[in-house]
Amino acid sequence: MNILVVNGPNLGAIGRRQPGIYGSKGFDELPGVLTRILGDREKQIRWRIYQSNHEGELVDRLEQAVDEGVNGLVLNAGALTHTSLVLADCLAWIGIPCVEVHLSNVWARQEPIRQTSLIAKHCIGSVSGFGLTGYGLAFLALMEHMSSQSG
Amino acid sequence: MNILVVNGPNLGAIGRRQPGIYGSKGFDELPGVLTRILGDREKQIRWRIYQSNHEGELVDRLEQAVDEGVNGLVLNAGALTHTSLVLADCLAWIGIPCVEVHLSNVWARQEPIRQTSLIAKHCIGSVSGFGLTGYGLAFLALMEHMSSQSG
Amino acid sequence: MNILVVNGPNLGAIGRRQPGIYGSKGFDELPGVLTRILGDREKQIRWRIYQSNHEGELVDRLEQAVDEGVNGLVLNAGALTHTSLVLADCLAWIGIPCVEVHLSNVWARQEPIRQTSLIAKHCIGSVSGFGLTGYGLAFLALMEHMSSQSG
Amino acid sequence: MNILVVNGPNLGAIGRRQPGIYGSKGFDELPGVLTRILGDREKQIRWRIYQSNHEGELVDRLEQAVDEGVNGLVLNAGALTHTSLVLADCLAWIGIPCVEVHLSNVWARQEPIRQTSLIAKHCIGSVSGFGLTGYGLAFLALMEHMSSQSG
Amino acid sequence: MNILVVNGPNLGAIGRRQPGIYGSKGFDELPGVLTRILGDREKQIRWRIYQSNHEGELVDRLEQAVDEGVNGLVLNAGALTHTSLVLADCLAWIGIPCVEVHLSNVWARQEPIRQTSLIAKHCIGSVSGFGLTGYGLAFLALMEHMSSQSG
Amino acid sequence: MNILVVNGPNLGAIGRRQPGIYGSKGFDELPGVLTRILGDREKQIRWRIYQSNHEGELVDRLEQAVDEGVNGLVLNAGALTHTSLVLADCLAWIGIPCVEVHLSNVWARQEPIRQTSLIAKHCIGSVSGFGLTGYGLAFLALMEHMSSQSG
Amino acid sequence: MNILVVNGPNLGAIGRRQPGIYGSKGFDELPGVLTRILGDREKQIRWRIYQSNHEGELVDRLEQAVDEGVNGLVLNAGALTHTSLVLADCLAWIGIPCVEVHLSNVWARQEPIRQTSLIAKHCIGSVSGFGLTGYGLAFLALMEHMSSQSG
Amino acid sequence: MNILVVNGPNLGAIGRRQPGIYGSKGFDELPGVLTRILGDREKQIRWRIYQSNHEGELVDRLEQAVDEGVNGLVLNAGALTHTSLVLADCLAWIGIPCVEVHLSNVWARQEPIRQTSLIAKHCIGSVSGFGLTGYGLAFLALMEHMSSQSG
Amino acid sequence: MNILVVNGPNLGAIGRRQPGIYGSKGFDELPGVLTRILGDREKQIRWRIYQSNHEGELVDRLEQAVDEGVNGLVLNAGALTHTSLVLADCLAWIGIPCVEVHLSNVWARQEPIRQTSLIAKHCIGSVSGFGLTGYGLAFLALMEHMSSQSG
Amino acid sequence: MNILVVNGPNLGAIGRRQPGIYGSKGFDELPGVLTRILGDREKQIRWRIYQSNHEGELVDRLEQAVDEGVNGLVLNAGALTHTSLVLADCLAWIGIPCVEVHLSNVWARQEPIRQTSLIAKHCIGSVSGFGLTGYGLAFLALMEHMSSQSG
Amino acid sequence: MNILVVNGPNLGAIGRRQPGIYGSKGFDELPGVLTRILGDREKQIRWRIYQSNHEGELVDRLEQAVDEGVNGLVLNAGALTHTSLVLADCLAWIGIPCVEVHLSNVWARQEPIRQTSLIAKHCIGSVSGFGLTGYGLAFLALMEHMSSQSG
Amino acid sequence: MNILVVNGPNLGAIGRRQPGIYGSKGFDELPGVLTRILGDREKQIRWRIYQSNHEGELVDRLEQAVDEGVNGLVLNAGALTHTSLVLADCLAWIGIPCVEVHLSNVWARQEPIRQTSLIAKHCIGSVSGFGLTGYGLAFLALMEHMSSQSG
Repeated sequence: MNILVVNGPNLGAIGRRQPGIYGSKGFDELPGVLTRILGDREKQIRWRIYQSNHEGELVDRLEQAVDEGVNGLVLNAGALTHTSLVLADCLAWIGIPCVEVHLSNVWARQEPIRQTSLIAKHCIGSVSGFGLTGYGLAFLALMEHMSSQSG
Repeated sequence: MNILVVNGPNLGAIGRRQPGIYGSKGFDELPGVLTRILGDREKQIRWRIYQSNHEGELVDRLEQAVDEGVNGLVLNAGALTHTSLVLADCLAWIGIPCVEVHLSNVWARQEPIRQTSLIAKHCIGSVSGFGLTGYGLAFLALMEHMSSQSG
Repeated sequence: MNILVVNGPNLGAIGRRQPGIYGSKGFDELPGVLTRILGDREKQIRWRIYQSNHEGELVDRLEQAVDEGVNGLVLNAGALTHTSLVLADCLAWIGIPCVEVHLSNVWARQEPIRQTSLIAKHCIGSVSGFGLTGYGLAFLALMEHMSSQSG
Repeated sequence: MNILVVNGPNLGAIGRRQPGIYGSKGFDELPGVLTRILGDREKQIRWRIYQSNHEGELVDRLEQAVDEGVNGLVLNAGALTHTSLVLADCLAWIGIPCVEVHLSNVWARQEPIRQTSLIAKHCIGSVSGFGLTGYGLAFLALMEHMSSQSG
Repeated sequence: MNILVVNGPNLGAIGRRQPGIYGSKGFDELPGVLTRILGDREKQIRWRIYQSNHEGELVDRLEQAVDEGVNGLVLNAGALTHTSLVLADCLAWIGIPCVEVHLSNVWARQEPIRQTSLIAKHCIGSVSGFGLTGYGLAFLALMEHMSSQSG
Repeated sequence: MNILVVNGPNLGAIGRRQPGIYGSKGFDELPGVLTRILGDREKQIRWRIYQSNHEGELVDRLEQAVDEGVNGLVLNAGALTHTSLVLADCLAWIGIPCVEVHLSNVWARQEPIRQTSLIAKHCIGSVSGFGLTGYGLAFLALMEHMSSQSG
Repeated sequence: MNILVVNGPNLGAIGRRQPGIYGSKGFDELPGVLTRILGDREKQIRWRIYQSNHEGELVDRLEQAVDEGVNGLVLNAGALTHTSLVLADCLAWIGIPCVEVHLSNVWARQEPIRQTSLIAKHCIGSVSGFGLTGYGLAFLALMEHMSSQSG
Repeated sequence: MNILVVNGPNLGAIGRRQPGIYGSKGFDELPGVLTRILGDREKQIRWRIYQSNHEGELVDRLEQAVDEGVNGLVLNAGALTHTSLVLADCLAWIGIPCVEVHLSNVWARQEPIRQTSLIAKHCIGSVSGFGLTGYGLAFLALMEHMSSQSG
Repeated sequence: MNILVVNGPNLGAIGRRQPGIYGSKGFDELPGVLTRILGDREKQIRWRIYQSNHEGELVDRLEQAVDEGVNGLVLNAGALTHTSLVLADCLAWIGIPCVEVHLSNVWARQEPIRQTSLIAKHCIGSVSGFGLTGYGLAFLALMEHMSSQSG
Repeated sequence: MNILVVNGPNLGAIGRRQPGIYGSKGFDELPGVLTRILGDREKQIRWRIYQSNHEGELVDRLEQAVDEGVNGLVLNAGALTHTSLVLADCLAWIGIPCVEVHLSNVWARQEPIRQTSLIAKHCIGSVSGFGLTGYGLAFLALMEHMSSQSG
Repeated sequence: MNILVVNGPNLGAIGRRQPGIYGSKGFDELPGVLTRILGDREKQIRWRIYQSNHEGELVDRLEQAVDEGVNGLVLNAGALTHTSLVLADCLAWIGIPCVEVHLSNVWARQEPIRQTSLIAKHCIGSVSGFGLTGYGLAFLALMEHMSSQSG
Repeated sequence: MNILVVNGPNLGAIGRRQPGIYGSKGFDELPGVLTRILGDREKQIRWRIYQSNHEGELVDRLEQAVDEGVNGLVLNAGALTHTSLVLADCLAWIGIPCVEVHLSNVWARQEPIRQTSLIAKHCIGSVSGFGLTGYGLAFLALMEHMSSQSG
């Protein structure tokens, strides 16, 4: 399995960005999290991680993923979750199974603009509120999804 | 760890209820799912499952959980997710860490009434769209949450 | 034909509840109404009537109807018509042909909360404004629906 | 009893207009439907049917009905149900008991513009979703209404 | 001065239409009202009155007024006041000074749909709530307007 | 007849306030306007005029009018028309017949805040868009109203 | 006087439920509060208290109160205040004078869902924000209301 | 205890203002009401009453209360309750414990503009619907509040 | 190819109606425009043009088109674009490929009522803002559509 | 240059009013602030300061400013910024260049009622969030504006 | 004539992106489409095509077009049509005549976010729903516009 | 003090972009403006200016500013002010004191989309409407803010 983790704007700063909301771990701790959550299953996957503050670069990267044979996406679009119809339209056509992840529990935040995800309807599911652990859960969810599809 | 799984209205019928939306597995398959997702960690927990179509019974059950020493909740409130301020107020005061679970990807459904969760703000996070697998992920998330709290 | 009449909250008091809005007849007069409206056709059906003030009990009763082989529902959900997504979700999955009935003409009432029926989209049609007569019309509508389906 | 059936825009095409929504029967089958639904009672009434695509002609026709001694209306205003305050104001002043009929279950359709009936508050009740059968039910409802008024 | 009085839908029935709201006088009393309100000034004007329940006929009539040299309009559009963008667009291009009249005080009625006049912005002013007297006031207003324009 | 003309905020400046909207005449020209509009009838009335920029003073003045035996009000509340529930409540209880007047055609102005009159429902009617002429029309309307009441 | 105190969902936990919002007193302290607030007048009343987390049970209890001759209600519907049209409809028909009570000052809370009371229009008045003291004030208000009615 | 009762616009007319809504008692009956409600406790307080139709004067008066050592407010802001952010901001900074009072049950009135209290969030609680009695209840509530604060 | 051009209300006056918005050309110039835009292709089509200010006549004409074998519609519904659900329902059932045309760029106009087209969803596409030229473009679009359908 | 500083309701209390929001300086410190911000330029201006809690007095004062030859306004309307159409209409006609000032950053506050300024469109610009310093900046802005106008 | 075709996000993938919505032709077929639509007129123009997934690059490219002497724009902004005020502001100042193009009929799509075009008011007109053919129509429209401007 | 001026989309064109709204000065005149506004104080600061049409580049630049020791931001985000939650989230975490600047008085513009600033709540204050002068005021405000913080 070939998984691409895509992080959107302001997610390059995780670890030092408002730790009270987003946690104090940076993405350098993601391999450890995956080992802990996936255990033996980690061997079944190949993964890469990409981050950009640019909506256009995220779309370019997702289009490139089609040609690379990526067959699972873990996407934390950051604030673009709520504003980018461009990103939503991209997910709609590339058709790679995608899990939406958020570090904080976005559905619990009170600002109205954060209460709609434009990308949700192009994702198989979502995980939010568990910090980096959520990425590990998303990997698991993708793997279960794949095996149920192929099973 | 003492976990209570609480399922709300219409969730007693899972497996035969609209399989295209909610999947074809019933809750009798949950133990197998947990074994698959949790692996060895399954031994660290004790869990029970409860379902009711009655909002009042759900509240009664949650109040009782306080006295039973339940320290983790996995809650799929079904349609009450979107309409029950009563359930939300209950979660607010009992203070047991809770993960919101949905079988389908509720954030992707187009009916406006399904796009707000009254209970989200009293939960540590949410998992939706992965069918029964999501319950397993919720268990994992609760366990990670506990260990990070105590760690 | 096996028809179940389900009445929701506050409908146990019909006859003495605000007669100006809901009429002065109680459900004990329903058999007479059916005889009058259905005439000979009354013999083709078997029917029972159920009332509860509890949303949960109504869902329990509807789920039980699936196992009883009920093949037609006449449902007056009372105020739950406008607030109960739980009841709507139940109708969605049990799949028994259902006619929505209201004693008063709900579409004519001016309170905004009464102007949307959450259950309408899971019903084959609706009858409102004719008091107990409306139940008789609903029986007729169900019978015509059945015969056109089977015809 | 002297009943006028009034059909609004696009209802001249019933039978060939989107049969999946409106059914495949034309108004030429209405007499048969009435015979079937009303049985012996059919003799107690005199009825005529009128259709126009013109809002103004519908109002003219309704005003004329006052002078003709029509004492019961069965009105399917089609799309004007949701947009014509003119028609609503006409019903308000002519004061002839009126039953609102729709072939499809309009309360179940998802377009917001179809979820409000401007004419409902000037009708004694409504019947929707039963195709031509609904007209028969409307006749029955009008007759019951009359007899309860005079009784 | 050449004034055309145009009355829209349901205004042919004034006098017998809901007298509690619209008064008990019919348009046959308008000449008397004008004599009373205008006094000597009545001689300075020539006027005709037109009524139709048809939006299209009202537009046709207004277009014809341009060719007839009508230089003042008194318009009571009835319910079309609130719904007819067609009539508003017609007033916009014909450019004849127009006074909006209503028998009842429409701005005081509580139905939201009656609280916006689509035609107001194409009228020099409005008079509402004074029954037939309002037509007389509208004539006066038009005459004052003309003399101030030409003065 | 004893009429009080009440003008609200910014109406002391009429004549030099935005003449393009409000006209170039000041209230010193009102007597001339009344003579022109009322003709002989002017003798039947006694009137005074009051202006204040203070909502509270306007209410005080209206309360005082009750004791003075004022039996007709001509009220231009200026911007308070759209914002002062206080003034509306005052009109509601003093019960003196009142005509709402506006110099400009307020119903035609595009700002949403100007499209609702809080005071309309406590007035017998309204006149707007005719500058000072409108005050004369309001006097006429009040006199006609009185004579029809007493007639 | 025969007063029934009815408490809705989550009100069984008062005293240990979020004391910062709801206070630290439980309903076992209510008799003391009544003694303090009512003084001698306490002898004029007979009262009972009922609590349930179930909407349906609350309605059942209120219907039963009609037969018991209860002539005053003190109702704290908890979160159902804002969501239960069922409870509102029940109050509407039972017709027992009712005072709405809230422990916290609900009108001051910022969540939009808490800013409308569906039951208010079926109550003679409301008291909110004074904790258990508010129940005492409600008793006083009911007693004053009764004496003014009978006086 | 030093209590100031502040009444806003149109409250000088109570007793003769719409008695069906506001009752037939004037504020001259308030001392009697207080004696009846407070009993012996009346001796513990000193109180004055102030009324103005002017928002600005009410703010001036409240600012003056700070310097006078007033330590409890009973405020019926009348229509300003719903429109005066100025009054709300004043209560916010003066910090004197305040009880909001309304003669009628404002939360039950159907006009949308009356369904929000701008001042509620700066008050410890509210009492509405009990006429003058409500002022007495407010005094009691303030006294209980003080004693619980100091206790 | 058999094309019908249908123009709605106020479009009979084009050329003299607000030329700043709608241009100074009348429909008598349409043949020249078509020759210029279509060139040789003009020979492949037969076309007629129809205009009415009456919604009902437009619907009648469209129904008649079905029987005439019209296989392409160019429709400028004028103000009915935004208000006529009747016209939309007609297009829905007649099923003739239709191109929506507007002389001005309606999507750029600021009035909210002009920003929704009820008929758009029953058209293959739309052209707006190019005056009469837009009709020529619509013909081209229809012809391309047909050839791609048949090709 | 002749500048008038106008402060609205609750601004007389600055310094002791919620210092966390509005700062701890009173207007007695304004001269010092101006000296610090304006430096030598202070000599080019003459200024006065006015405060009132009364909307009407503020309008009176602004009207008087026209006659006094004031040619620059610094206006902090306090809560009236968001509610007073009266004040907005006054600024509209007096035509004196005005800078809107707020002590706190009003655009950042979360209450919806504080997010619209009715007066903004009659001001050349606004300064908010800098406490008393903002008044100094407003003076500078006015002076730059004047010199660019005259330059 | 010097025309620039600008395509926004996700339009590089046309041909393989959801063919059911956007058609199966890629932009490599545009020259053929132009030849077919424009015929001889193709010689009168010079054109280039540009695509980017980056809002910022699109703005950069449009600014550059000013310096290149581009005198006609054909712009398909993709999803940015509905979300990019940045692009709208750019079109507003560069002032090059622009035609808005969409492959699908955007006005017919049901998602609310797709029903407003932020850029429409800066375009002379729009063409939508005709796939690549629409680009050819836009070229024609631009050429007609130019000749009418210069004619 | 180390200040970074950040300008967003379309601000590279200032001077030639719609001078009626944004003024005719380009940023090359900013040094002169600062000298004029700051006088001697200019020596206390070091500043640089950055402009980009790309949201992503603006975020990259702001993140870089943290490492450069920038301790004051002057930000004119252009149209992104109203649409970019990404930029708002960036300001939220970098924590550098920021003043929001706009050349035109944005709060006075009538388009709804321009009436909310997503970034305001992460800024200490804002200055709008004074063209380039506003940048100078923003520098002053930042310096005063710093000195009060450190003072």
